[in-house]
Amino acid sequence: MTTPRFDESFRRQLDDLFRWRRDVRRFRPDPIPAAELDRLLQTAALSPSVGNSQPWRFVKVGSPERRDRIRESFRACSREALAGYGGERARRYAALKLSGLDVAPVQLAVFVDPDPEAGAGLGRRTMPETVPYSAVLAIHTLWLAARARGIGLGWVSILDPREVRRILDIDEAWSLVAYLCLGLPEEEHLDPELERAGWQGRLAASELVVER
Amino acid sequence: MTTPRFDESFRRQLDDLFRWRRDVRRFRPDPIPAAELDRLLQTAALSPSVGNSQPWRFVKVGSPERRDRIRESFRACSREALAGYGGERARRYAALKLSGLDVAPVQLAVFVDPDPEAGAGLGRRTMPETVPYSAVLAIHTLWLAARARGIGLGWVSILDPREVRRILDIDEAWSLVAYLCLGLPEEEHLDPELERAGWQGRLAASELVVER
Repeated sequence: MTTPRFDESFRRQLDDLFRWRRDVRRFRPDPIPAAELDRLLQTAALSPSVGNSQPWRFVKVGSPERRDRIRESFRACSREALAGYGGERARRYAALKLSGLDVAPVQLAVFVDPDPEAGAGLGRRTMPETVPYSAVLAIHTLWLAARARGIGLGWVSILDPREVRRILDIDEAWSLVAYLCLGLPEEEHLDPELERAGWQGRLAASELVVER
Repeated sequence: MTTPRFDESFRRQLDDLFRWRRDVRRFRPDPIPAAELDRLLQTAALSPSVGNSQPWRFVKVGSPERRDRIRESFRACSREALAGYGGERARRYAALKLSGLDVAPVQLAVFVDPDPEAGAGLGRRTMPETVPYSAVLAIHTLWLAARARGIGLGWVSILDPREVRRILDIDEAWSLVAYLCLGLPEEEHLDPELERAGWQGRLAASELVVER
């Protein structure tokens, strides 16, 4: 197989993909074919990982009862978060749509095995957090590969990770990294939802760079 | 601006990008134009982040003296890691090339502000680890955008994160997420270096998926 050359047209489209990726919270109920989801997970498994440890573990959540309990956990955590805001922030928080758990046809919990056998510990002795970071890289690959196929993804973090693990009956050795909703988006945007809602705009890239 | 449609040809090339991304440790010394690096950092800043908090902080490490001290820290950490292996694993570890710190023309330390003002705390109350995870997403965007332009990236994690912060004279409020080497790769591969070296091969994607 010859090394691919990525041309200017591909790079422009890749930049468009980064710009239009978005965190999706409004889904159409149309199902995603199982084979398409499996292909996306195979692509995600090509992601980089510390020591090639591939510590990502994907849990397809299909049970309506478990999904109900996850949604209830989300609602409880979101109510608690709301109680921490006052005045205008509280009003804005209450108006935000923060998850697509109500409609998203595909729900995926991503766990990490924090002490994976694969990789024999390479590269994570001084920075063990690189193991969950590896699972985050796989989530991002999934996100981009999905978006390129018109499938939106939303990352739900307003959850109690230990409660999610119990609801899904997952071994205590694994830790929750993310709970993901996937499906066809109801709408597509160039700007982040939280920017549109007046919650938080973009910082200037120049604020984020330091020289040493 | 109209919503982009990503066609089959783009998707195939995107999959190629994921497959050929690689963690690069062998660089050519040729410099990367400063404007090109800045464009890559601007692209990385389009990444998703919890509450749109954009907590990534990029430190361009140009000082030869600081680079020397980072390389010395890497060598010390790698010696300690080697001491933890025995027999065949130790022999293999000693033979691995684990960083491009010797030659890479661009070195970038990525920090996270774990308590960013931006985002007003949204989405990170129950899972504060989503803040460093956001910086990881930006690193992955940078990685892919660089590779699409023929620029390789290598993630060095065999470092003491607090020592790196001291060497770079960075505020204690920030935490190191990754130390990155960038430059033109000496060689390009479809398979991970650690697979080629017999350290760790690919797990089957089916081992990584559970249903609930």
